[in-house]
Amino acid sequence: MEDVNEKVANLDVTNKKEKKTPKVKAPKTTGGGSSGGGGGGGKKKEVKKETGLGLSNKKDENFGDWYSEVVVSGEMIEYYDISGCYILRPWSMAIWEIMQTFFDAEIKKMKIKNCYFPVFVSSTVLQKEKDHIEGFAPEVAWVTKSGDTDLEVPIAIRPTSETVMYPYFSKWIRGHRDLPLRLNQWCNVVRWEFSNPTPFIRSREFLWQEGHTAFATKDEADQEVLEVLELYRRIYEEFLAIPVVKGKKSENEKFAGGLYTTSVEAFVPNTGRGVQGATSHCLGQNFAKMFEINFENEKGEKGMVWQNSWAYSTRTIGVMVMVHGDDKGLVLPPKVASVQVIVIPVPYKDADTQAICDACSETAEELNKAGFRAETDLRDNYSPGWKYSNWELKGVPLRIEIGPKDMAKNQVRVVRRDNGSKEDISRTNLVDHIKDLLENVQQSLFDAAKQKRDACVTVAKTWEEFTKALNEKRMILAPWCDEEEVERDVKARTKGEMGACKTLCTPFDQPELPEGTLCFASGKPAKKWTYWGRSY
Amino acid sequence: MEDVNEKVANLDVTNKKEKKTPKVKAPKTTGGGSSGGGGGGGKKKEVKKETGLGLSNKKDENFGDWYSEVVVSGEMIEYYDISGCYILRPWSMAIWEIMQTFFDAEIKKMKIKNCYFPVFVSSTVLQKEKDHIEGFAPEVAWVTKSGDTDLEVPIAIRPTSETVMYPYFSKWIRGHRDLPLRLNQWCNVVRWEFSNPTPFIRSREFLWQEGHTAFATKDEADQEVLEVLELYRRIYEEFLAIPVVKGKKSENEKFAGGLYTTSVEAFVPNTGRGVQGATSHCLGQNFAKMFEINFENEKGEKGMVWQNSWAYSTRTIGVMVMVHGDDKGLVLPPKVASVQVIVIPVPYKDADTQAICDACSETAEELNKAGFRAETDLRDNYSPGWKYSNWELKGVPLRIEIGPKDMAKNQVRVVRRDNGSKEDISRTNLVDHIKDLLENVQQSLFDAAKQKRDACVTVAKTWEEFTKALNEKRMILAPWCDEEEVERDVKARTKGEMGACKTLCTPFDQPELPEGTLCFASGKPAKKWTYWGRSY
Repeated sequence: MEDVNEKVANLDVTNKKEKKTPKVKAPKTTGGGSSGGGGGGGKKKEVKKETGLGLSNKKDENFGDWYSEVVVSGEMIEYYDISGCYILRPWSMAIWEIMQTFFDAEIKKMKIKNCYFPVFVSSTVLQKEKDHIEGFAPEVAWVTKSGDTDLEVPIAIRPTSETVMYPYFSKWIRGHRDLPLRLNQWCNVVRWEFSNPTPFIRSREFLWQEGHTAFATKDEADQEVLEVLELYRRIYEEFLAIPVVKGKKSENEKFAGGLYTTSVEAFVPNTGRGVQGATSHCLGQNFAKMFEINFENEKGEKGMVWQNSWAYSTRTIGVMVMVHGDDKGLVLPPKVASVQVIVIPVPYKDADTQAICDACSETAEELNKAGFRAETDLRDNYSPGWKYSNWELKGVPLRIEIGPKDMAKNQVRVVRRDNGSKEDISRTNLVDHIKDLLENVQQSLFDAAKQKRDACVTVAKTWEEFTKALNEKRMILAPWCDEEEVERDVKARTKGEMGACKTLCTPFDQPELPEGTLCFASGKPAKKWTYWGRSY
Repeated sequence: MEDVNEKVANLDVTNKKEKKTPKVKAPKTTGGGSSGGGGGGGKKKEVKKETGLGLSNKKDENFGDWYSEVVVSGEMIEYYDISGCYILRPWSMAIWEIMQTFFDAEIKKMKIKNCYFPVFVSSTVLQKEKDHIEGFAPEVAWVTKSGDTDLEVPIAIRPTSETVMYPYFSKWIRGHRDLPLRLNQWCNVVRWEFSNPTPFIRSREFLWQEGHTAFATKDEADQEVLEVLELYRRIYEEFLAIPVVKGKKSENEKFAGGLYTTSVEAFVPNTGRGVQGATSHCLGQNFAKMFEINFENEKGEKGMVWQNSWAYSTRTIGVMVMVHGDDKGLVLPPKVASVQVIVIPVPYKDADTQAICDACSETAEELNKAGFRAETDLRDNYSPGWKYSNWELKGVPLRIEIGPKDMAKNQVRVVRRDNGSKEDISRTNLVDHIKDLLENVQQSLFDAAKQKRDACVTVAKTWEEFTKALNEKRMILAPWCDEEEVERDVKARTKGEMGACKTLCTPFDQPELPEGTLCFASGKPAKKWTYWGRSY
């Protein structure tokens, strides 16, 4: 069979400057099993060692290639023949769905309702809010033909849906009783970016939710901004086990056309880059003015609504891979892993293989009944060692091994993915033990990530301290005068191979700022502590 | 405030021949309340009668306008400024989500996994299967620009994802252990049709799920086709209360590039048109050949996979509106209604309004706790009569009224949307009673729809009987020789203002076909009974 990898790579139709499908050492098997919707590729004779599943790149040595390799080998992503677009395989889609289930239920409790607006937007409407369109214009994809027929006017594909939705907000909102109007949609959006597409982190199409709400008062809008931001914090910290900083974006970095932007910011120690994890914007009355979203209040007076929009995307999954993955592959936090426990038989020549396999199935079934997500790997064409590596590559939090000795002792061996520790557990109180272990793994992942992140933070009070820390790939907390011009200046002065440095956010949790503290960059009086760094 | 309806209509950028936003008499209110994400529009003084919410078109007199009006007034759809695209408002989106929850759980039981493939497809790949692309080419939307830059090669937006996915099936499938490969995705697709766009039924963008699976043997593929078709039947019959016919499509009507197509076919008595409700295709090995999806079997022999694809879309919701709706508005089957019971206070001047409202809230809460979807309408600026009409328009299955007399007797009045019948129920066994009533409404809707549908079926054995029945807008069951040429001929001969007649399906449930029965159209020996009719 010809090499489909090459076949596919040749179909690239956009042909823009970017990294091509990385040359990765994918798991080679005669048949990679059905998990995740298909195995690797190649023939068994190509497997050099029994555990020849390791990654060829190391996270600390070659982070970019390691990342490209781990998302492909871990079966989360397949590179697609249109650059900047990626296939989300079941192994990553399941993570997205678990987060979606949580978030969707939470916003429904807040009386936010789901809807679906078209993927297309007319240019007239798209261009209605000037600052907004300036922010998105270069990345907008345009449909100009159907079949062989030219459209009379090109139609844009939504890069976000403010301008798609707000003409209808104007139509639906008349009086104070129509408020608040709180909508959300789960959908795809397209931003035709050319710089460094990276799976999950920066892609031309991605999945997200976008909430769009309108209130009678600014107070209500302000309150919702923070309520939603707290949900985003929970997705990162409670589900993905990634510490984030809640804060406010600078004027330069806020949402185009909005009043202010809050975000949760994560950090990737290996690259020393911040990642905007999710954003919750207060749009103020700017869009309301452009789209004439007015209402009559209780007293019969006319007013303009206050609006918010907020979103998180499949980027979350990429941040998770970057923060937790290691040289053996993915490391999935139990709360988002579609398989939390993989049960593997370890038969010996003289042992009763059938009995061992039965014990594996019973164990998985017992765990599934107790509400965990457990599976067995009973494939007879792989050794236990190969399977261990395979499921480590895929990041499953716990592995249970059952061999003849375990059978004799009515126990199982449990191995943790995060730290490799092994433990023999009696089968009589398996469920309680697994529950504790999964909680422990979840917490340990968060604690380890937080410790690493915290160790990357430098407080810099002078330009020298700042540039030194930046060169050391640190996340920098610095006193700042909060002037747009100064941020632009810092960006210009730090522009280099690695990309410019900018503000990540001004954390809500502000350390004390002693009177007389000066801005690290301008020397003017500092107004606040702000995080700075390079970012994705 | 200016008329936003007009404002929006003026933005139409495609300017193709089709029906514009219908002039409908939408509920006019000072503030339509928050239900469904926003009320109607206009000022209170425009409300001429207390119950001035009725539809201005009648279902039996002017079906097309009635339909356009009821989907807008019932707050399911908002017309969009790009023709053929529609906004799914929360009231319809909730129905979609309820069906999605059911179907997604069922296919997960079948070990089908969700994934997400890009919305874009390169023209090389799109054109790989000739019959397939011929079927879709005229409707494909092409992206040719990003920002101000022309793309080097135009990129298509998926009209369906066979060609998007199968190059990767080829990559992922090597050996028999990689089979079956069973994937599904929930997504939007685009078909830039120009003929008669109709909300839900025929739109340029719609939401659907598309399943794509590959098997080692035809038997397995055949079996899955029917398993999935049965899920589609359940969506229509158990959830939407719409009777459907399971059957096989003719060669002319099967999926472009596939081996055979099965479908569930619904019928709209008012227009005398069949509706293809959902399709489950066996693709055979045709795509496998084009995309080289080969595998090695247990004996080391090379084989080609057998593939299926299957889908249902938001069209389901349109069929439901058409079948059950009446001159008062929507009629929602309880199983898909996001509000199953609306509780309305009926205060009198001298009564304790607060106590009545409290009783309403308690009633709704009791029902919600029991697992029903109940809401109250305690708005103080509408009369009970206005609210009755409003919730009838929106199709809520049961209305509970609580007034002073009900308070005194510790009872509530329950009114059914489907038949208007009223009943007083003691509050002591409310939950059991509501449970029975909702089940009864669900069953009654199905029974009534089935009776109507059945009454529309004519058995026609001759061309004369056939044309007579067709003119009477009937669904025709006729003995057919099963020749493609004959179907094309029937199409040509029946082409008229109303559109041509074609086969709907050959029902799996075949009446006896006596030896010597002749085809109604060709006079050749008949091979099967087939349903014929005009269709959407």
